[in-house]
Amino acid sequence: MIATATKRIAPPKRLLYGPGPSMVEPRAYEAMSQPVVGIFDPYFLGILEELRGGLRTVFGTQNQATFVVPAGGSGAMEAALANFLRPGSKLAVFAAGHFADRMTIMAERLRAQVARLEKPWGQVFSAQEAGQFIERERPQAVAFVQAETSTGAYQSGRAIAAAAHAVNALAIADCVTSLGAMPVELDEVGIDVAFSCSQKGLSCPAGLSPISISPRAWAQLESRSEEPFTWYLDLRLTAKYFDAPHVYHHTPSPPLYYAMQQGLAAIEEEGLENRWQRHRRASERLIAGLAGLGFEPLVARPEDRIWHLTTVLPPAGVDQAALRQKLFEKHGIEIASGLGQLAGKILRIGTMGPLATDENVDVFLRAFAECL
Amino acid sequence: MIATATKRIAPPKRLLYGPGPSMVEPRAYEAMSQPVVGIFDPYFLGILEELRGGLRTVFGTQNQATFVVPAGGSGAMEAALANFLRPGSKLAVFAAGHFADRMTIMAERLRAQVARLEKPWGQVFSAQEAGQFIERERPQAVAFVQAETSTGAYQSGRAIAAAAHAVNALAIADCVTSLGAMPVELDEVGIDVAFSCSQKGLSCPAGLSPISISPRAWAQLESRSEEPFTWYLDLRLTAKYFDAPHVYHHTPSPPLYYAMQQGLAAIEEEGLENRWQRHRRASERLIAGLAGLGFEPLVARPEDRIWHLTTVLPPAGVDQAALRQKLFEKHGIEIASGLGQLAGKILRIGTMGPLATDENVDVFLRAFAECL
Repeated sequence: MIATATKRIAPPKRLLYGPGPSMVEPRAYEAMSQPVVGIFDPYFLGILEELRGGLRTVFGTQNQATFVVPAGGSGAMEAALANFLRPGSKLAVFAAGHFADRMTIMAERLRAQVARLEKPWGQVFSAQEAGQFIERERPQAVAFVQAETSTGAYQSGRAIAAAAHAVNALAIADCVTSLGAMPVELDEVGIDVAFSCSQKGLSCPAGLSPISISPRAWAQLESRSEEPFTWYLDLRLTAKYFDAPHVYHHTPSPPLYYAMQQGLAAIEEEGLENRWQRHRRASERLIAGLAGLGFEPLVARPEDRIWHLTTVLPPAGVDQAALRQKLFEKHGIEIASGLGQLAGKILRIGTMGPLATDENVDVFLRAFAECL
Repeated sequence: MIATATKRIAPPKRLLYGPGPSMVEPRAYEAMSQPVVGIFDPYFLGILEELRGGLRTVFGTQNQATFVVPAGGSGAMEAALANFLRPGSKLAVFAAGHFADRMTIMAERLRAQVARLEKPWGQVFSAQEAGQFIERERPQAVAFVQAETSTGAYQSGRAIAAAAHAVNALAIADCVTSLGAMPVELDEVGIDVAFSCSQKGLSCPAGLSPISISPRAWAQLESRSEEPFTWYLDLRLTAKYFDAPHVYHHTPSPPLYYAMQQGLAAIEEEGLENRWQRHRRASERLIAGLAGLGFEPLVARPEDRIWHLTTVLPPAGVDQAALRQKLFEKHGIEIASGLGQLAGKILRIGTMGPLATDENVDVFLRAFAECL
């Protein structure tokens, strides 16, 4: 039973300096309190089109097949894999983090054959490594993580996509953390299938996940003779809702669409390049401040770092769990530790959206230093 | 590109008298504009527990395994099937509507063997039909639709569940439209796996879908040796987030949880039985009004009708598409036609949540009569 039937929602004030969910854009909150309308209402279809246009901008693509999957980021990951793999397909995975492992698990459940190139978590793959691995494995598809949320490492994927195309494989990219806060650039990089989420670089609530598919990959989907295991995440069926004449597949959630349209409009208002640079500057300021306190970046080379998600190793003697607890209790600040093999070893600090400013980095650093 | 980066969301005023999405409870709107918090925040975990308690009430169950799937109603349908079927399992489907067909399609994609008992759309199955079909087919699982949104027909499922248990099969029920507005009563009926949605009887926005699993079905899940094809909709992994110690699986969407907790609290405040009766009375008033205008119920027997979703056949000479268009343009009222084989043949009129009152039925009937 609900304790008090008349009790309203009144969350305590929190500052989400973690790897996501991140702070939500004020315009998105305002949007969610607007009335829902029907799923074929001309007003709603107009919002859809604006949202898709905004997604093409942040994805850096002309792909017509750019829309959202009615699920969280891992649902979009599963959509990307389930629609482009069939039992027995070979998938080559660049594995240096938790989310590459998640793709491996999903692909195996889909009865694909997975080949993995592993590196220590926090590292990225060189062009030579990418080329040799793909050339040797000759897979039907290649999967990599553009911004690995579990380690803080970023790689654009240029060399991986080029090597994939050289053997006629599709390049599938996890852009869950990169989208909206740093370069994704699907068309320039050569990514065929990209998926993301709403609750990190886009400053929206979770629950609705962008996906974009190149014409080359879409043609492959259209010629697919056997249906994927999943109906809910079937991208051909999903696309039929987004494109005219808008055939019913699932029931979209208007508040999440309203929020994302506003999140994207806020990015357009700021300018995508300006937004990227704001995140880059915040990250540099944060890393400098943390270095002054003895925290060392996990990702060695600055050019391999995610701009809005900083991962650091605490100096000897710092109890990272106690530190996080203190930050949370005294300041309402949420940050995270690592996942999987980095659990308890690193701190993950996000400076996303509204928090990626000098002022908010300083707010964080002051509270952090106080809790040490 | 987004037309106007500074443009805010300002939907036109609509009255959603369709089969869902339905009008959202005011408390749910208020809740969605509250700040998001982290997914392991004690405040959020408290909301989760309240939400689960509220769901047990509306589902009429003691099932510990009562939680939400981070997807729409069809995602929950897929979760129910994908976790309890394996390739080669036999599923018996009671098929008299679009959503029974959807379950058939999903089960076939999951490589299950499907046996169907078909009846004309709008009819329900007798105890004798249920018993004979299940006895003959001896399936591992049985699926039926408690409230068939495409036809307006309701059946509790008592006879189906009893017949399923007699051959040791699980009873899986689509409660997408029944939940929150009329009796579902899982424990009393004997349903093992029930799924629903948020945007109909619960008066919440779409995007988060209740599911409840009996101890007997859960034990079967726990002993399952082979993983389901889906990782995102894997119920064992999902449950690990909902139960202590709350292990990360996906990122939940706080605004949708806040909204559902408030939608359920509003139901508790009204009283579930009161709410059911309010929907029943509204439906009777609506049907009487429509009969006076020459519209005949598709579902012949009153006891087989969904209380909050009325389906009618227009009298000769009424152009139902033109009528719907006129209602929409002149009054901002949305109703729907049929799906599949009933497309263009029936009208589907929902009186859900805030619209299930004498006043709102009369508002509808006046506008409807005016547009004839």
